[in-house]
Formats: sequence, structure tokens, C-alpha cells
Amino acid sequence: MNYQDAFRTALDRVRQEGRYRVFADLKRHRGEFPRATWTQADGSQSDVIVWCSNDYLGQGQNPVVLDAMHQAIEEAGAGSGGTRNISGTTHYHVELEAELADLHGKEAALLFTSGYVSNEASLSTLYKILPGLIIFSDALNHNSMISGIRAGRGPRHVYRHNDLAHLEELLAAADPAAPKLIAFESVYSMDGDIADIAGTIALAKKYNALTYIDEVHAVGMYGPRGAGVAERDGVMAEIDIIEGTLGKAFGVMGGYIAADAVIVDAIRSYADGFIFTTSLPPALAAGAVASIRYLKDHNEVREAHQERAATLKALMRKAGLPVMPSVSHIVPVEVGDPVHCKLISDILLSDYGIYVQPINYPTVPRGTERLRFTPSPAHTDEMMGDLVKALENLWTRCNIKRVGGVAA
Amino acid sequence: MNYQDAFRTALDRVRQEGRYRVFADLKRHRGEFPRATWTQADGSQSDVIVWCSNDYLGQGQNPVVLDAMHQAIEEAGAGSGGTRNISGTTHYHVELEAELADLHGKEAALLFTSGYVSNEASLSTLYKILPGLIIFSDALNHNSMISGIRAGRGPRHVYRHNDLAHLEELLAAADPAAPKLIAFESVYSMDGDIADIAGTIALAKKYNALTYIDEVHAVGMYGPRGAGVAERDGVMAEIDIIEGTLGKAFGVMGGYIAADAVIVDAIRSYADGFIFTTSLPPALAAGAVASIRYLKDHNEVREAHQERAATLKALMRKAGLPVMPSVSHIVPVEVGDPVHCKLISDILLSDYGIYVQPINYPTVPRGTERLRFTPSPAHTDEMMGDLVKALENLWTRCNIKRVGGVAA
Ligand SMILES: Cc1ncc(COP(=O)(O)O)c(C=O)c1O
Ligand SMILES: Cc1ncc(COP(=O)(O)O)c(C=O)c1O
Repeated sequence: MNYQDAFRTALDRVRQEGRYRVFADLKRHRGEFPRATWTQADGSQSDVIVWCSNDYLGQGQNPVVLDAMHQAIEEAGAGSGGTRNISGTTHYHVELEAELADLHGKEAALLFTSGYVSNEASLSTLYKILPGLIIFSDALNHNSMISGIRAGRGPRHVYRHNDLAHLEELLAAADPAAPKLIAFESVYSMDGDIADIAGTIALAKKYNALTYIDEVHAVGMYGPRGAGVAERDGVMAEIDIIEGTLGKAFGVMGGYIAADAVIVDAIRSYADGFIFTTSLPPALAAGAVASIRYLKDHNEVREAHQERAATLKALMRKAGLPVMPSVSHIVPVEVGDPVHCKLISDILLSDYGIYVQPINYPTVPRGTERLRFTPSPAHTDEMMGDLVKALENLWTRCNIKRVGGVAA
Repeated sequence: MNYQDAFRTALDRVRQEGRYRVFADLKRHRGEFPRATWTQADGSQSDVIVWCSNDYLGQGQNPVVLDAMHQAIEEAGAGSGGTRNISGTTHYHVELEAELADLHGKEAALLFTSGYVSNEASLSTLYKILPGLIIFSDALNHNSMISGIRAGRGPRHVYRHNDLAHLEELLAAADPAAPKLIAFESVYSMDGDIADIAGTIALAKKYNALTYIDEVHAVGMYGPRGAGVAERDGVMAEIDIIEGTLGKAFGVMGGYIAADAVIVDAIRSYADGFIFTTSLPPALAAGAVASIRYLKDHNEVREAHQERAATLKALMRKAGLPVMPSVSHIVPVEVGDPVHCKLISDILLSDYGIYVQPINYPTVPRGTERLRFTPSPAHTDEMMGDLVKALENLWTRCNIKRVGGVAA
């Protein structure tokens, strides 16, 4: 057994599949979002416009958020110094959980290290809490949900993406007496499509199942107070467990669930991934509280966000670029080939100062490789013009198919 | 199926086992560590001395760390806004990984959201990278390691805690051609005992196994530059994978591994828990870099830390309190009963302004319930005197057995 060789072989496999990743080293300029400095391996630097950040609303630059963080550092220091149970629950954590419960109109909320951990820990733990639980999971659910469902080792059924007829088939075939949970997302972040939440709730009621929704790509951005698509659609009260992140539209980091007090208390008491880890630093909790409050009161940020996304889609369509049929703030442009996709991304960065990461397999199915743009309220008309011009050039140069068949 | 009842039943189970947890709401006073304000459920507040923080050296209050965080917030904002691959790699992350690699004398390091995630993601992923891998795991390994090993679903053998004869038995019985990994900790945080690292390495060499050490409760605190017990013992170069946290002695939050570049690169490329999650905020990375650098150069902090722990142990022994035989900075005092343990902790908090969390099952075996004190360089002689006096009172009042048999 030669271990070095074994690790090298594993890496060769990744390279052969065309999915070896080189991280772009960026330094954002505070107050000038979406501008950043890109540092190359040789140390040379250049300015770029970031087009693929999940800090969707630029809240990571909002002075209200930064001030709250500065203040918490001054008051309480750097880290929390403990797990939630052993000296790691501060006033900031308590306040943030109350703020999140209020945001979603639920009795309680529970903080986790990240959105990933909140999904993984909650879903795996629900199997422990509800013996015999069957989870019905949308086929395109995020890796963190799949990982939690797998770790729980209980029975699970995967239904075709957003296919409620298929979901109903599976629900109808299951033991009527068994506890059931439907796990799905609101906004699917790689395509930008949105689930039929009301339809899913109707099925859950019919078959006495709980609902668990991941609103990671929706919180802050949808609904009159930014609680997500379930709020926008007027069905938030009928969802049992809402999961979200503090690391995307809220601009900080961390994850959470919001639900009835008894559900939250049970997960709090049983979830290893919640119990046995250092809690979030007070400064992150404080920043998140400030961000959530700000977005509750500033619906105009959401309006600007939607307008920017609609404008970019329109500009791209006009240029014949193959924008995928997103109904959300996400603007995916199909390339359909991993090598082309990476190449276009590389040239955009080096020649045009435009940073957008290629999205290849396994994040999306083979043959649907894409560039995924996330215009924010801070992306100007001029930036959009520059972007579309650059893409037009490259589409011609790389001879990639345009909608309408300009090239092949 | 009544879900509310099911969740309530699960909670009743926790209560019956005497392990329902109520989190103490604390607000530390920056610059006055270990002092904090405790807020009770009724809103009343009082000042307490924190005796159970894992911010072992008070680095969460070190101005060097706080300044670095403030500066990073000013320069780069709040969150990172993305996964490491999709716009979430900043200069701060790159710098921190270089700093960690240097700390441990390894070629590379990889950052995770937390120590928990670093263990869970790395260990589960090693099964994917090394087909046929067998993991040999110390019986008292932390929940995060167990969780990663379980999630990997490969063969595993658990050896009795720190029992190298048992480990060798298991190694000798396994297929000599199979890839093997020994997973263990340096300092076990609930007892304060320390593994025989050199002995474990010798066995690993004899049976051609990799070594994976969790130095979560040692980094920052042991070794001339604070790289941990493997550094102190002069065997760091012979460990294959070192795992650590930024959330305890370094005073911030986050986790990592350090190893050969090819190992780190393989885990970076395969670990879902690393790939599919928002990266750490730049301010946390910057704070961690400052903290690590500071502790590399300030061995006197480590000396003060050891002196404080030795002093507290001596004072307690002199008072006849049943200090457990810790050889590290951790000072556990056995109570041996979950109800007594909780009671003492409650009275210490309410009557003496002393905050120490009871450690009950399942964190430790039944019958070994304990109070676990973590004296830092900032805990004064006077605080120690007050603590020992309070414990003496309570030991008499609660009629708990003392060493030497003062009460029964
Ligand atoms: C749908 C979905 N859920 C959960 C997560 C994880 O959230 P976080 O980045 O806070 O870990 C992500 C992305 O990272 C996601 O896309
Ligand atoms: C031995 C050990 N490993 C890992 C962890 C997890 O580290 P973190 O708190 O950074 O998640 C802990 C405690 O929290 C621990 O005690």
C-alpha cells in the first residue's frame, strides 16, 4: 500500500473528469461591491467585477451589518469560546434566534454553524426523534440535505424534481401510519426555478406528512419582510420546518431552522452536529440580527434586486445568449460543455475582468454546464453592458450555439 | 400519527434521563475575561466568573486578534459570500491556510467551517479516496470523529481508550494489504489525559497505517510554537494528518487539517462538507491568523496557562476535593451523580457567581459525572481561592464524598 500513490490516483480521477478546481483568490473592496482584487498564482493583481457571489443583496457590505459586528467585537470579543451548552450561549445568540423565529412567524428557531450543518444535522436527527420516519426528497435537493438524509439511515424516497404527481404516487404507496416528511427547496440555485410550495403543502396535509423547506436561496430576497418564497406565497404558517442560511442574502455566515417550539427543542436536544461544536462568534450573530432587521424594513432592496435580474436576462436574450428559463434572481447561461465552460470563465477573468465561476458536473448534470450570474442591486447598467458585450465576443470566438442558431 | 406528541415524547425521554439542557445566557466583558454577565429567564442580571470556557488562553479577548478582525471587516466586509470555489476564496483564507501549514510543518492545510466539520468531512471522505480503507478509532474519540467514520460506512475497529496493546491486536488481525488509518486525539478534553503519540506512530509504521490526530484541545497550548502535543513530543513530522480548531485556544472559530499537499488536495477535491458550504468570513480568517502568529511567539502564555492549571489542581487537592488525574490544563472534579452535579453547578452560579457547566451522560459515562474547570492565564489566585472555598462549602452541604473520606 503506497498512500502517496493512492491519493495521487484519486486526484487524477478528478482531473480526468475535468472537475479539478483552482480557487480564485479574491479580495473584495468594502463599500465598492461587486468590485474585488484578483491575485494570481504569480502574485500579479488586477481588478474584477464579481458576478457569481451569493451575497445576493450586498449585505456583506452594508454599514449597518458591519457596525453591528464591530460593536459586538468591542463588547464581547472574538469567538464564543464554547459549545452552546458549555459557556457558548451569549446574549447575541439568544437575540438572533428570537429574531429568526419572528422573521418566519414561528415559535422558535435554532442556530447552526452553517446552512450545510443545519440541513445535515436536522434531517439526520429527525430520523432519531421520529422512529420509522420516511423522508420524501426532491431529486435536486442540495448535497447538505442528501447528506443528512443518508446519515439518518432511515427509509427515503426520491421524487422527480418538482414533480408533485410523482411525490403523490410515493406518498400514496407508503404505510399510512408511518411518520413522513417532505424535504424540498424553494429556489433551486443552479437553475433558478421555484417549487410549488402550496401544492406540496396540500399533499402533505392529504397524507399527514411534515414539510421541511430549504429557503437558503430565498431568505432575505422574497416576501414582504424577506422571509422567503413561502412568505411571498402566503403559505409560511403551513410549513412545519423552515431552514435557511445567514451566509447568502444576509451576508454573514451561519444556518438555522425555524418551527414550533417543541420541534426546535427536540432537535436542539438530539442533534449531535448542533451539540458538539463551538457556537457562532457573537460578532456573526450580531451582524446577522442587524442584517435581518434591515431587510425586514427595506423591501426596496428586494425590488431593485428583481429588477436587476430581469434586466440582465432581457439584455442577454436580446443578444441571443442562451439564458435558461429561471423565474428567480438567478441568471444561468447554458454552455453545455465542461471544457468550453471553463475556458469562457478563464477568458472572462483574464481578458475582461469579469469573474464568474464555471458550473460543471457534479454540481449540475453533464451536458448542462453553465455560467451562473447573480446580479445584485449594486451591479450597474454599465457593468451589465460590459458583461453582455464580453459574452457576445466569446460566444462568437468559441463558436458556441446561440439561441436562434447564430453559430453552431 | 400525531407529530406534536411524537416530539414531546422525544423530549420527555431526554428529561427522564436527566439530560435536558438549559443554556446559560452570558455576555462576556471584553478585556475583563473571565468575567461575564449572566441573564436569567426573568431578565435579571448578575456578574459571574466563567470557569468552563474553551477560550483557554483568553485569545478571544486579545487586542491583536480583535484588531485584525476589525481591519478585515473594514477591508472586505462581513461574510465571504460564497463557497470556496464560487467566489468565496479570499486572500484571508489563502493566508490562513499557509499559516496553518507552517504551524504544523506540513506542506498544506485546508480550512473548514468548524473543528466538527473538519473531522466529519475528512474522515468520511478518506473512505472515498482510499477504497478498502479500515479506520482504527480510539473508544473515547469525539462525536465529530465518530460521526465522520460512521458516515463513511467503511470498516472500522474501535480500540480501548489509549490502549496500544489492543490497537496492535486489531492492526495485526487486519488484512496487511488494506489501507489503514489510526484516528485518535492528543488531549482528551473531558478527562484531561494525553495519548501516547510516539507509541501510536510506532504501531502505524509497523503496520503501514496512516495516522490522524485531533489536536483540538492542544493547538495553541502545547509545543514551543503552540502546534500541539505532537510538536511538544517532537513527533509532529511523523503524523500524517493533524486536525485542529480555531475556536478554542485560538479564540475564534473554524477548523482545519494539515498534511502533505497531495492529501490535502484530495480531501479538498472530494469532501462534500468542504465543497458545498459558504466559506468562513474574512474577519474570522484574519483573526485566526493574528492569533496563531501571536501564540507562535508567546510561549510565556502557555507557561502561565500550565502554571494556573497546576495551581488550581494543587489547591483543590489540598482541600480534599476529588480532582481527577488529568495531566493537562483541564481540571475535572468528580461528582459521580447527575442530579448532584447539576445541583452544585446551579448553586455555584446563583449563590457564588461561579459558572461551570455540569458534565453528565452522554458526554461522559454514567457514574463519572463531573465539573470541568478550565483555568486560563486570566484566572487570578483570588478567583481560585473563592472557587475552592465555594466548592468546600458545597461538598460539605451536599454531603459528597471527598478524597480521604471526609464525608460519604
Ligand atoms: C440549497 C442549499 N442549501 C444549503 C446550503 C448550505 O448553506 P451554507 O452555505 O450556509 O452552508 C447551500 C449552499 O451553500 C444551498 O445551495
Ligand atoms: C476533540 C474535539 N474535536 C473536535 C471538536 C469540534 O471542534 P469545533 O468546536 O471547532 O467544532 C471538539 C469540540 O467542540 C472536540 O472536543
